[in-house]
Amino acid sequence: MGAGSWGTAFAKIMADAGSDVSLWARRESVVEAVNATRRNPDYFPDIDLPEGITATADPAEALAGARIVVLAVPSQTLSDNLAAWTERIDPDATVVSLMKGIELGTLRRMSEVVSDVSGIATERIAVVSGPNLAREIAQEQPTASVVACPDHERAVELQNAVTTSYFRPYSSTDVIGCELGGATKNVIALAYGMASGMGMGDNTKATLITRGLAEATRLGVNLGADPATFAGLAGLGDLVATCSSPLSRNHTFGKQLGLGKSLEEAAEVTKQTAEGVKSCRSIRDLSRKAGVEMPICETVEKVCYEGLDPREAVVALMTRETKPESEELRSKHEQ
Amino acid sequence: MGAGSWGTAFAKIMADAGSDVSLWARRESVVEAVNATRRNPDYFPDIDLPEGITATADPAEALAGARIVVLAVPSQTLSDNLAAWTERIDPDATVVSLMKGIELGTLRRMSEVVSDVSGIATERIAVVSGPNLAREIAQEQPTASVVACPDHERAVELQNAVTTSYFRPYSSTDVIGCELGGATKNVIALAYGMASGMGMGDNTKATLITRGLAEATRLGVNLGADPATFAGLAGLGDLVATCSSPLSRNHTFGKQLGLGKSLEEAAEVTKQTAEGVKSCRSIRDLSRKAGVEMPICETVEKVCYEGLDPREAVVALMTRETKPESEELRSKHEQ
Repeated sequence: MGAGSWGTAFAKIMADAGSDVSLWARRESVVEAVNATRRNPDYFPDIDLPEGITATADPAEALAGARIVVLAVPSQTLSDNLAAWTERIDPDATVVSLMKGIELGTLRRMSEVVSDVSGIATERIAVVSGPNLAREIAQEQPTASVVACPDHERAVELQNAVTTSYFRPYSSTDVIGCELGGATKNVIALAYGMASGMGMGDNTKATLITRGLAEATRLGVNLGADPATFAGLAGLGDLVATCSSPLSRNHTFGKQLGLGKSLEEAAEVTKQTAEGVKSCRSIRDLSRKAGVEMPICETVEKVCYEGLDPREAVVALMTRETKPESEELRSKHEQ
Repeated sequence: MGAGSWGTAFAKIMADAGSDVSLWARRESVVEAVNATRRNPDYFPDIDLPEGITATADPAEALAGARIVVLAVPSQTLSDNLAAWTERIDPDATVVSLMKGIELGTLRRMSEVVSDVSGIATERIAVVSGPNLAREIAQEQPTASVVACPDHERAVELQNAVTTSYFRPYSSTDVIGCELGGATKNVIALAYGMASGMGMGDNTKATLITRGLAEATRLGVNLGADPATFAGLAGLGDLVATCSSPLSRNHTFGKQLGLGKSLEEAAEVTKQTAEGVKSCRSIRDLSRKAGVEMPICETVEKVCYEGLDPREAVVALMTRETKPESEELRSKHEQ
């Protein structure tokens, strides 16, 4: 459900893995293009989609008889979209979230929105997260990922349904860790992009990644996630791919801010506002509620919404009082 | 002791932090240039060194009265060099290793070589490691690092002696973790460079970093290191900086191999053989001795010494049977 870049690439994975895929797109023009030309003109005009994909603009048609329902709409629209779809979802289907965000205001993770809005049991809700830049997957560049579901058997079923020669999913039961890893990395990628736009070196940027992952892990552990998830593909892997890639909208958006552009000017370059710009506020609120210090996410929020100069921000982050790298993660060894 | 790029940049840090630094260089021409022009023509012809540095080609002169002795010679030459210097080292001096390697044959970490060769107690031996590309530090780009010594007080003293506005060291007591993090990252950076030379995407490269850090952590934990060190600046931070940077010799060397060049041809491009080319064999031997699986390091060794084609190597790494990301690090959540 959703024919954006990741939704389309994931449809390709599922079709390549042997499923019949019904791809729901909001716009009729995309549906027609996919069915007529086997291409998604908006995201992958140059990539052939497999025969197993049929596009439709009718949610009821897309959902009819689906054993696996994959949700890939913008995070902040999920609640409204899903409310309209719920009654069409098969009562035993696995519902998979590809979305990386925290709902503004309610501070719910995407899987929490799914269960709250649809009433679907959490055992049927899965998430997929990892170093998964959609364009590279569409080009069949080899990568790995994590498929998480509280019901281990369902996770393994889903794993089998999305394994191809170029996409290697690992199964997990840590939904919370995967979702928080995915949401925080967009914010850290904004900080990384800012540092990059300001001409900072690779030492500075690697320090930001290390500290950023540490603060994400602190939040995750506080909220019940497994710290190992953050050291894995859905944490470190996703973060590094997003920060490294010129394809990442969050990185590019942060870079424009680092070059001195305003939010509006940056949005013009990336065509739309980056996910991290929305998430930074919800993550900041979530961290305050949990009582977890997240200086990088706090700083990104201040740059985006309180007029803090990115140059001052990055320097302030790098010259904070030295103290233990992380109270919870570093052992007593390091102070 | 050593006026290579890291030795020189570290001398600058210490002088900027307020110490009088005596910089030992093997070659008289470097000594003369540093003293006459305040520059190191071999590594930083464009960077002014502080007044606090005096160069000398005489080890006895460099060591006389030194409270902190910093060793920065090529890993495989440490043993011979140190044997000649030991009697000149002050009996209470802190001896600091900046070297990242494992001695071939003996499989000793650098701090083990120091204590074995000189008889100096391990409580007096410290290491410094982190996302520390020497050129960026010489340019005063902000970064952080880890200063590790089994004697916590000594670590804090050293920390104070190397804190500047652009270099923020954290103290630690995990010498083993810092040294293994530093040695393995060169090998993983070679694999990353190969993938890069072959045109692999950011997903693939982020997967290599994630799995590479996981196998380094497995080895470290097996040998007594704190796993948190690998998640910190001396593990993840150093690895990401080295992999990201076009300044990194290991990355560049790996890239040449990925482009189909031989070891000899790659060495011509980077002017000398990369540290990881030497370390990959000692790390492989160390991992076998410890009974720890390290597929990435094994593969790099095969490419360097057993004629394995890098293209086949990277594909094989990415399409291995899916199994738990790490037996020791992943919890029961993920399989």
